[in-house]
Amino acid sequence: MTTHDTHRVPLSPTPRTTLTRSKERGVDDRAALDAVLDAGLVCHLGVLLGGSPVVVPTIYGRGGDTLYLHGSTGAGNVRAAIGADVSIAVTHVDGVVYARSAMHFSMNYRSAVIRGKAVLVTDDAERTEALRLIVEHAAPGSWDRVRPPNRKEMAATMVLALDLTEASVKVRTGGPNDDADDVETGGVWAGVLPLRQVWGEPIAADNLEPGVEVPAEVAARGTPESVAAG
Amino acid sequence: MTTHDTHRVPLSPTPRTTLTRSKERGVDDRAALDAVLDAGLVCHLGVLLGGSPVVVPTIYGRGGDTLYLHGSTGAGNVRAAIGADVSIAVTHVDGVVYARSAMHFSMNYRSAVIRGKAVLVTDDAERTEALRLIVEHAAPGSWDRVRPPNRKEMAATMVLALDLTEASVKVRTGGPNDDADDVETGGVWAGVLPLRQVWGEPIAADNLEPGVEVPAEVAARGTPESVAAG
Repeated sequence: MTTHDTHRVPLSPTPRTTLTRSKERGVDDRAALDAVLDAGLVCHLGVLLGGSPVVVPTIYGRGGDTLYLHGSTGAGNVRAAIGADVSIAVTHVDGVVYARSAMHFSMNYRSAVIRGKAVLVTDDAERTEALRLIVEHAAPGSWDRVRPPNRKEMAATMVLALDLTEASVKVRTGGPNDDADDVETGGVWAGVLPLRQVWGEPIAADNLEPGVEVPAEVAARGTPESVAAG
Repeated sequence: MTTHDTHRVPLSPTPRTTLTRSKERGVDDRAALDAVLDAGLVCHLGVLLGGSPVVVPTIYGRGGDTLYLHGSTGAGNVRAAIGADVSIAVTHVDGVVYARSAMHFSMNYRSAVIRGKAVLVTDDAERTEALRLIVEHAAPGSWDRVRPPNRKEMAATMVLALDLTEASVKVRTGGPNDDADDVETGGVWAGVLPLRQVWGEPIAADNLEPGVEVPAEVAARGTPESVAAG
């Protein structure tokens, strides 16, 4: 993506997250980070595995200044993250920017990049709360409606916590940044093709017994017109 | 995400990409990798920066068995990737899986994870072809319609190539994998809330002169009913 028209949020001006390019639109706003995270469904976790980085998608939850991940105790990627420096990115693509020249094509997007040490959560109350946050992030309103984790499930699950103190946010909006010469030459369509996510209609599980209605919060989310979290 | 009901495509059974979990649905199909990559708009690049992994979103293109990235010569993340082991993930979220118990909530998704060495492309013809693939990936049909990169733009741009030989694909579809006990207990709605991306109507740039029509390929992509590439 190009760096034009981006709003960057230098939330943590440590040397390694201070933005070195396109700082002109930096917005120092912690709320921007929360908004990008809260609107996402999946993050991409980068972790060192055998000396090389690997990027894996995973679900997550947020509680205040902490991002939580979970995984099976058998998951090598998650194990590798324990106590290690990791990075997490959440990105929403809002449209394709069509320009008058090849190098000015871009995406409109909102993205957050976090860096920090992933800490294994060992306190049972915090582990449960983290799992609640993860479930509620994916499926708001569901935790209190379903069976909570039992002892066996808790034992088979790792929970990791990552501070949100070292993060940056980038937002690109608007049309192409074409060169003046190309605008003057004219004759080439330029603009934005917006992209958004929408929920479909809920599909009941094959083994759902008759008479169980779609929960109100699922039905509301699944309204075709509702714009989805990304 | 849980690992239930996933189809994994062990395209490159090197020790570090051989899937160690949930192998029961492995699908050894190179076409699955291309499908996930070709349907994406943004990938997440993981690269070592100052000894720690960082994950950044970026656009990409594919030519046969090669994935191409580009960036400004001033972009530290891209510079750090030159000649280095990197990882790239492309993920499509297709729905939220609502289960009868907290730990069985999941996502339906298609994801590809690639690992390998990013190579700086120096040949001018390949550099131009890579940029064409990247533009055509983001905006099919556009390259021949717009001004190509000029000498100054080419000099300011780095192109990186990554072999697609070391990759895995995971696909999860279908409903929740609830425990038999929870199904028997009953009374809890379970199923899938599908999610998809849709294009909006094209928005002309503010400075577009009158009389320039939306290109046919943009108009066709922007049909509200069209399901978007992810």
